[in-house]
Amino acid sequence: MSEERTIKVCEIFGPTIQGEGALIGRPTVFVRTGGCDYRCSWCDSLHAVESRFRDDWRPMEPHEILESVRRLSGGKPLTVTLSGGNPAIQPFADLIRRGKADGYGFALETQGSVSQPWFSELETLVLSPKPPSSGMQCDVDAVRTCLRAAGEGPRSVLKFVVFDDADFRFARQTAALFPTLRVYLQPGNHTPPPPGEEDAAIDLDGINRRFEWLVGKVLSEGWFEAHVLPQLHVLIWGNRRGV
Amino acid sequence: MSEERTIKVCEIFGPTIQGEGALIGRPTVFVRTGGCDYRCSWCDSLHAVESRFRDDWRPMEPHEILESVRRLSGGKPLTVTLSGGNPAIQPFADLIRRGKADGYGFALETQGSVSQPWFSELETLVLSPKPPSSGMQCDVDAVRTCLRAAGEGPRSVLKFVVFDDADFRFARQTAALFPTLRVYLQPGNHTPPPPGEEDAAIDLDGINRRFEWLVGKVLSEGWFEAHVLPQLHVLIWGNRRGV
Repeated sequence: MSEERTIKVCEIFGPTIQGEGALIGRPTVFVRTGGCDYRCSWCDSLHAVESRFRDDWRPMEPHEILESVRRLSGGKPLTVTLSGGNPAIQPFADLIRRGKADGYGFALETQGSVSQPWFSELETLVLSPKPPSSGMQCDVDAVRTCLRAAGEGPRSVLKFVVFDDADFRFARQTAALFPTLRVYLQPGNHTPPPPGEEDAAIDLDGINRRFEWLVGKVLSEGWFEAHVLPQLHVLIWGNRRGV
Repeated sequence: MSEERTIKVCEIFGPTIQGEGALIGRPTVFVRTGGCDYRCSWCDSLHAVESRFRDDWRPMEPHEILESVRRLSGGKPLTVTLSGGNPAIQPFADLIRRGKADGYGFALETQGSVSQPWFSELETLVLSPKPPSSGMQCDVDAVRTCLRAAGEGPRSVLKFVVFDDADFRFARQTAALFPTLRVYLQPGNHTPPPPGEEDAAIDLDGINRRFEWLVGKVLSEGWFEAHVLPQLHVLIWGNRRGV
């Protein structure tokens, strides 16, 4: 197996339910890849981003990943969520092809900075352009390129993390460029877990207040096409990993 | 206006976000009607069910309801959720016709015991057959009749409240009869508010445990097509009404 076809895997876990966005509540197995072209100030998955953790990322061949997923799901097909880091920088074509042949579907979560031909083979493409509070600059043309690569293949949706008014304006303006896409807004986790501290306390009151604030913004500004959802896994399980 | 066309309204409130099921997170105005052909043991909306509250239900004409909704939404169309009680026993045809002409869409939440020709004009039909713990007997043929009345008009989905193993089996068996419908499962609220006690305490730990139990059931039995969602409004706002 050539090096180019191996995927850098940070963790594979599940089945659990998807905690956020378009597939909230849906059973899934997560394949979280290591490596990211972004460095968001509030990243909640640094263990999959920072190079000091790269020794924990295992290069895996597509058939190995599929075997892990199959073992976790008891051999029963379900939706596999490809997350990261930025999973769009990994060579997923072969895994998706093999998985689909076995009845598995694939959802990808990415910031929309990198597009791949295999986007068209996804079931769901979640594009999550990063708002100003991340410290990153969103390239709208790159998001467009992702959508073109996806074509009519998957259901494509937008997800925005919103920490403040500037993020909200960014979300609204960016969403307006893609009027046919469903929009999911979620308040940022202002107490993300430091890597290696899975049981770090969360500020549940603060999370609830931020959720109420975001709901209030959406309603008072009449953005009735948007969906506002919390990170359900954080509400229920806190920062615990692997659930 | 003839008596037959007035709708018994318990409350109209919003905009807020839908807290459960297929439209979770979506801005909506609720029109809750008074009166129900069921008496579920754990009903969380007794103020819209028991006849001792009937003097609080106001007979309203469709144009009055639409004016209320329009005032609440600032004149901007959105999804109106028809809830109850059982809203399917009300004459909604005229309201839906008028609302749609103005750009509003309608979602109905009903147990599926009573069908109406106007189901075909809905945007979303949420059929919520009641499980054994409710003390009611689900009539599957009535559910089928609702789906026939809806036809290809709305998106029809199933929602099940699950308190225990028997409820779970009921949900799974009933869902199997309607394999094309999306399924949403939610743990029951075991501390529903007594009518008039809007600020009654909720047992958040208990709610979380019940949610985890239901997620565990779905995952261990491999029911990967189902969605498991909490009552988001209860997690965030407790039993408070009107939010």
